[in-house]
Amino acid sequence: MTLDEKLAQLVGFWEKGDGEVVAPLQGEFAVEQGLDDAVRHGLGHLTRPYGTRPVDAGDRARWLWAQQRRLVRETRLGIPALVHEECLTGLSAWRAATFPTPLAWGAAFDPELVEEMGAAIGGSMRTLGIHQGLAPVLDVIRDPRWGRVDECISEDPYVVGSLGTAYVQGLQSTGVHATLKHFVGYSASQAGRNFAPVHAGPREIEDVLLLPFEMAVLDGGVRSVMHSYAEIDGVPVAASAELLTGVLRDRWRFDGTVVADYFGVAFLQLLHGVAADLGDAAGQALAAGVDIELPTGDAFLAPLAAAVRAGAVDEALVDRAVLRALQQKEDLGLLDETFDDEPPATIDLDTPEHRRIAARLAEESVVLLTNDGTLPLRAPASVAVIGPNADRYDALFGCYSFVNHVLAHHPEAEVGLEVRTVRESLAAELPSASVTFERGCAVDDQDESGIAAAVAAAEAAEVAVVVVGDHAGLFGRGTVGEGCDRDDLELPGVQRALVEAVLATGTPVVLVLLTGRPYAVDWALDRCAAAVQTFFPGEEGGPAVAGVLTGRVNPSGHLPVSLPRSAGAQPYSYLHPALGGNGDVTNLRSTPALPFGHGLSYTTFARALELDSEAGTDGAIRARVRVTNTGDRAGDDVVQVYGRDVVASVTRPVAQLLGYRRVSLEAGQSVVVDLTIPTTRLAFTGRSGTRIVEPGDVEVWVGPSCATKESQGTVTLVGGVHEVSIADERWTTTLVV
Amino acid sequence: MTLDEKLAQLVGFWEKGDGEVVAPLQGEFAVEQGLDDAVRHGLGHLTRPYGTRPVDAGDRARWLWAQQRRLVRETRLGIPALVHEECLTGLSAWRAATFPTPLAWGAAFDPELVEEMGAAIGGSMRTLGIHQGLAPVLDVIRDPRWGRVDECISEDPYVVGSLGTAYVQGLQSTGVHATLKHFVGYSASQAGRNFAPVHAGPREIEDVLLLPFEMAVLDGGVRSVMHSYAEIDGVPVAASAELLTGVLRDRWRFDGTVVADYFGVAFLQLLHGVAADLGDAAGQALAAGVDIELPTGDAFLAPLAAAVRAGAVDEALVDRAVLRALQQKEDLGLLDETFDDEPPATIDLDTPEHRRIAARLAEESVVLLTNDGTLPLRAPASVAVIGPNADRYDALFGCYSFVNHVLAHHPEAEVGLEVRTVRESLAAELPSASVTFERGCAVDDQDESGIAAAVAAAEAAEVAVVVVGDHAGLFGRGTVGEGCDRDDLELPGVQRALVEAVLATGTPVVLVLLTGRPYAVDWALDRCAAAVQTFFPGEEGGPAVAGVLTGRVNPSGHLPVSLPRSAGAQPYSYLHPALGGNGDVTNLRSTPALPFGHGLSYTTFARALELDSEAGTDGAIRARVRVTNTGDRAGDDVVQVYGRDVVASVTRPVAQLLGYRRVSLEAGQSVVVDLTIPTTRLAFTGRSGTRIVEPGDVEVWVGPSCATKESQGTVTLVGGVHEVSIADERWTTTLVV
Repeated sequence: MTLDEKLAQLVGFWEKGDGEVVAPLQGEFAVEQGLDDAVRHGLGHLTRPYGTRPVDAGDRARWLWAQQRRLVRETRLGIPALVHEECLTGLSAWRAATFPTPLAWGAAFDPELVEEMGAAIGGSMRTLGIHQGLAPVLDVIRDPRWGRVDECISEDPYVVGSLGTAYVQGLQSTGVHATLKHFVGYSASQAGRNFAPVHAGPREIEDVLLLPFEMAVLDGGVRSVMHSYAEIDGVPVAASAELLTGVLRDRWRFDGTVVADYFGVAFLQLLHGVAADLGDAAGQALAAGVDIELPTGDAFLAPLAAAVRAGAVDEALVDRAVLRALQQKEDLGLLDETFDDEPPATIDLDTPEHRRIAARLAEESVVLLTNDGTLPLRAPASVAVIGPNADRYDALFGCYSFVNHVLAHHPEAEVGLEVRTVRESLAAELPSASVTFERGCAVDDQDESGIAAAVAAAEAAEVAVVVVGDHAGLFGRGTVGEGCDRDDLELPGVQRALVEAVLATGTPVVLVLLTGRPYAVDWALDRCAAAVQTFFPGEEGGPAVAGVLTGRVNPSGHLPVSLPRSAGAQPYSYLHPALGGNGDVTNLRSTPALPFGHGLSYTTFARALELDSEAGTDGAIRARVRVTNTGDRAGDDVVQVYGRDVVASVTRPVAQLLGYRRVSLEAGQSVVVDLTIPTTRLAFTGRSGTRIVEPGDVEVWVGPSCATKESQGTVTLVGGVHEVSIADERWTTTLVV
Repeated sequence: MTLDEKLAQLVGFWEKGDGEVVAPLQGEFAVEQGLDDAVRHGLGHLTRPYGTRPVDAGDRARWLWAQQRRLVRETRLGIPALVHEECLTGLSAWRAATFPTPLAWGAAFDPELVEEMGAAIGGSMRTLGIHQGLAPVLDVIRDPRWGRVDECISEDPYVVGSLGTAYVQGLQSTGVHATLKHFVGYSASQAGRNFAPVHAGPREIEDVLLLPFEMAVLDGGVRSVMHSYAEIDGVPVAASAELLTGVLRDRWRFDGTVVADYFGVAFLQLLHGVAADLGDAAGQALAAGVDIELPTGDAFLAPLAAAVRAGAVDEALVDRAVLRALQQKEDLGLLDETFDDEPPATIDLDTPEHRRIAARLAEESVVLLTNDGTLPLRAPASVAVIGPNADRYDALFGCYSFVNHVLAHHPEAEVGLEVRTVRESLAAELPSASVTFERGCAVDDQDESGIAAAVAAAEAAEVAVVVVGDHAGLFGRGTVGEGCDRDDLELPGVQRALVEAVLATGTPVVLVLLTGRPYAVDWALDRCAAAVQTFFPGEEGGPAVAGVLTGRVNPSGHLPVSLPRSAGAQPYSYLHPALGGNGDVTNLRSTPALPFGHGLSYTTFARALELDSEAGTDGAIRARVRVTNTGDRAGDDVVQVYGRDVVASVTRPVAQLLGYRRVSLEAGQSVVVDLTIPTTRLAFTGRSGTRIVEPGDVEVWVGPSCATKESQGTVTLVGGVHEVSIADERWTTTLVV
C-alpha cells in the first residue's frame, strides 16, 4: 500500500450536503473535497450517511451500495468503506425507532431489556449497510450541570457498566460493532462545563471512570472505543498512550480500533495547545493509539502525510493503525463484500418489535418520586394538563435522537414517527374525563403571560398534571444536551413560577418531570400531591407516563442518579467516602433531595438479606435476598444490594451498589434472589497503585435506596490481599432468581 | 529515654479550662488528664496557652514560666515544652494586635510589608515565651465556597508563595518558628466543603498546590509544616509518606518537624476509615512522617505505646520523630533554658509599631472595584451609612482572629483592642457632614424589618455608603470561616434585598464589601456609583476604608481572587487552560464578574513592556516595565507581568502571573521596573512526571489585570528541555526598581 492508500483507510468522509452544521468549529475543519476526490486512494469510513439529514432510508441505502461498489471496483485495493452512524437512543436515521435515553435505561435497571434494544437497533443498522454504531456512552455521571448527562446511564459505575455491556452485547449480536465513548473522563469536567479540564487522580480514574469501559471490554467484548475530548490533569486523552495503549490494549488486551471523537485529533492543536500543528497533532494521536480520525481526515491526511515524509512521524505507527483498521473490516466481512446485490426494497425501521421494546423500557423507567395517594388517578371527572412538556413530542427525545439532533435543523421535515405526547396519551387513557390543556410557559424563556390561563385551568379541574422539564438540543439550542451545560439546577425558564402558581390554586398537583438531567426540585416535592421523574422516554414515552398516572402501569423505575439539592452543592456522588457527606466539620448538608436508587410503587415490598459470613478475598460473596410483595397488586421491585468496606487502606464509599435485580411479583408473592457477587466488585486501587481486594469486614445491606438499610449483615473477607488481574476481572454479578 | 519519655516529646498538652470547645469532635478526643499527670515523662508541646480563652498575657506568662521551670526541674530529662500558638492575623492572644486577614495581604501585593508584619507578630510571641506559630496558611484558593478562604492569600500559587515566604521570613527573624499549613490539598475539596475529598491529579498537586510550600521551604527556610486533613484521590495526607517524606524531606531536603493538624492523626480512624484503631492511626501517621501529634496525645500516647510494645509499630519510627522534635528544641535554644528568670512585668501586644503596620497593610489592601467618579467623596453635606457591617467591630476580623475565634465564646469579655468601625471612622473623616446610620439588616438572618429605615436614611442623604458582607466564625457560627462553607455565593441573609432597596431610592450608592471570600455581586456592580472590596482588614481597617472613601488614601489593592459570577460556576481559577474558559463547545460563559488582579485608583497608570527576545530554558526572562502615573495625584500601582506558554506538552494556563511589584509614583512620575523572572516560574510537570521547562515561545504581557494585555511581547525559550531540580528551584522574581 502506498502511504496515501494507508492514510485513506484511517479517515472518514462526511458527505454533508447543504444542511446546517450541527457542531461548532465543524466548519473550520471539514476537508473541502468532494467524494470523488476523497475515495481516490480508498476510504476508511463513510461518516453518518443516514444521520446527517432527513433522507429516505431506502434511497440512501441504494446510494450507499453504489458508493461501496465504486470503492470495490474502481480503487486499486478494492476495499469498501466501513459505514458508521450514531445510534445511542436508536439508529440516527429518519423514521427509525427512538428508544428512551440512557438515563431512562439506568432508571429501569433491566440489562436484559437493554440488550434486546441493542439487538433491535443493530438489526436496523445491519439492514442499511451500517457496520459500526457510535454508542453506548459509558461516562459515569459526576456532575448534573454537564449537558451531556442525558446521554449517560448513571452515577454508579457498575450500573453504567452492566447496562452498557448489555447494549454492546445486543448490538454486536447482529454483527454491528459498538463503540464505547468517551474513553475516558469526559463527564468529570470542571464545574460540569463541556470540555473543561478534568481534575481527578489516577485512583478515581481507575476505580470509578474506567470501570464501565473495562466491563464492556472484558465482559462485553466490544470492538471499538472512542477517545474522549477531555484532558485529565493536563494531558488530553487523545494524546495519552498511557490510557489508549497502556490501559486499553496492554492491560485489557483490547484488539479492536480506537476512533477519534469528531475533530478530536485537530483539537490537540486548536483547543488543547499541546500540538504545534495538525501534523504534530496527528503524530501524537497516532502514537498514543488513535487509529481512525473522524469525521474526516483533517489531520490524518495531508498533515500526517507531510509529517511522515519529513520523518517527523514514524510510518510504523501508520502501519499499526492500518492493520487494526483492516482487521476490523476483515472481522466485519467487508474485505469479501462485492455489493453486487441491492439493499432491501422496503425498509421498516420502526417495527412492532421496536415499539414493544420501546414501550416496555419506557414503562420500566418511570420513577414515582413521591405520592400522597393521589396516584394512580381514580377516574377523575376533570384533569388539567399543564406545562411546556405536556404536549410537545420532541420533549420525549434526547439530544442524540434523530428528532432533536438532526430534524431540529430541518424544520421543513416531518417527524416521521408516530408519537403521542403525554397530553394525548392521558386523554386516551381517561376517555370519560374532561382533559383540558394549557402550556403555561415555554421550556426556556422568561414569558409568564401564559401562567394565568394555566391557573384558571387548574382551578377548574379536579387534579392538575403539570409536565415540566427540558428541551434537548445541541450547543446552546437546548436546556440539556451537548454544549448545553448549566450553572444552576433550577427548572429552566419560568417553569418553577408556573408550578408555584398552580400549587397556589389548591388543586392537587401531579408533577411530571420530563428531563435529561436531575433538577433541584426539593421545593416542590413536599407540596405536590405526587411527583414523577422521567428521563426522555422515547417514542412510547407518552403512553408510558400516562399509564403510570392512571395505574395501568405500576411504576418500577428507580433513580440512577441522586436528585440534587442545588447546583452550588455540586459535584456530588452517592459514592462518597464519609467526609464527602454530612458531618460536624462543615455546616453544609450534602444529602441530596432524594437518594440514588429511590423509586416508589403502587404496591409495597419487604426485603430480607441472608448472607454467608465469610468469603475469600479472591472469591465471591453469596447473598440471598427474600423479596415479598406486601401490597395488593402486582409490581416489579429492583433488589438493590449495597456494601461498605469498613476499614481499607484508602478511603472507600459509605455505600456502593454491589448488585441489583429487577423482579416481578404478584400481590403477596415472595421470591429469593440469589446473588454471587465477585469480590472484585469491592476491589480498589491500593496505595501502591495496583488493584486489590483487602481482607476485612464488609457491611452489606438491602433497601429501597442507597440511603436505607432495610436488612443488613456483615461478611468478612478472608485470606491475603488479592491482586486483581484480567484473569478475574469479570464484573458481572451472577444472579439466580 | 524510655518509650514513655519519647512519646511525651511527640505530643502536646492543652490546658483548656472550662471554656467552651471551639472545634467539633474535640470533646471526643481530649485526653482526660491533668497537667500534673501529663508532664510526668516530660512534654513535647504546650498547646495554645494564650489563645484558648481571654487571659491576661502577663499573668499567663508567669504561669507558663512556672510550668517550664517544673519541666526543667522536676522531670527526669529536664526538657522544657515547646509552646505553640495560632498567629495567622496576629498573635492569638487577648489584647494582641490584629492585622488584616491573608486575603487582604494578597490584595496588597506587598511582601516587604507582610514580612514586617511577621516580624512584629514574632516579637510579641518571643516576649511571651511562644516558640512556634501555626501560620501561615499556604492553601491556594480553588473554590470560594470553602469557608476557610479567608485564611488563604490568593488563587495564584506564586502570590501565595511569595507572600507566605515573606511572612515566614518575618516571623522566623525573631527566632519563632513558622508552620506552613495545610500541607497539602485542603483548599481543593469537593464543592468547597470542608474536609471533603480532593479530586486532583499529581500534576495539579505538584504545579499548583505544592508550589507555595516549596517556595516557603526552599526560599523561606521554614522550620515546621502541618499536614492537612484532606484526602487526595483516596489517600489522607496524614498517612501519605509520598508527600510528607518523599516530597517534603527527600526532594526538598526539609529537616524541621511535621506537626499534625489538630486531631488529624485520630481522624485517620474516625473520619477517613483507613485505620482500624488509634494505634494503627498513630503507626500510619508516624510512618508517613508526622512527628508531633497536636493538640494532645490522643493516638501518640497510650495507643502508640501499646502498638510499639505489641510489635505492630517499629520503635525506630518513634526515634526518628523524637530526634526531629529534640533537634527543633535544640535549634530554639530550649535545651539550655532554665526559666530561672521571670517574663517581663508589663507586656504591650499592640504597640504603635503594630498599629502602623496594621494601618498600612489595611490601606494597601482596599480594592476599588468600580467608580463612576462618586469616589472619593467630595465634602458631602450628608452621608447615610447603612448595613450590618458598617458599625460592627468584629466585622473587621477574620475567623482566626482572637476576637472571632476565642472571644466569640466568651461574650462576658471585653474586646481588649482599640477598634473603630467603618461608621465611626467615616464620621471622623467627615467632621462637617451629617453622618446617619441604619443597620438595615443583620449579616445572616431573614429579618427585613430594618430595611425601611435604611431606605429612609438613604433618601435623606446625598450619598449612601452600604457596608455589607460576612461575619467570620467557627463551625456554623459565621458566614465564612472554618466549617462555614456555602453552596451559594450570594451575599448572606437579606443583604442583597437591603442593597436593592437602597439602590431603588436613587441616592448614589457606594457599596463596601467587608467579606472573607469573594461574592457573586455582579448584579450590583453596574448599578452602584462605586464599589469597594475589603477582606477583613483588621484593627486599623475602619480608618483604612474610610480613608479610601474620602480620598485621604488613594486605593491600590488588587483582587487576589477572581470575583465570581455564581456558585454554580465553581470551581473556577484564572489559571485555566483554554478549555477552562469560554468557547464554542459550551453555552456557559465562565468569565468572572471581575478578573484576578483588577483594582482601580484615583489616578491612572500606563504600562509599557520591553522584553529580551530570548532566554535559556535554564535561565531567566528579563523584562522591563515602564510605569507612568498619568493622572493628577500620587498613587501606588501593582505592576503585573503575565505569561502564557503557547505550545506545551501538557495543557497550560491562558494566563499566569510571572512577577509583580508595588510601586509608588507621584503624579506624572515614571519608573522602570526591571524584572528577572527565573524560567522555573514556567516549569510544569511534563508527561513523564518530572518538572521541566520546555523550549518555545512564551507570550508575556503587562496590564491592569490578568484579562487585559496593555503591552505585550514574546520571548523564545531556547536550549533543550530543562529538568528542574532543587539546585534551581528558587522561585522569587528578582526585581530592581
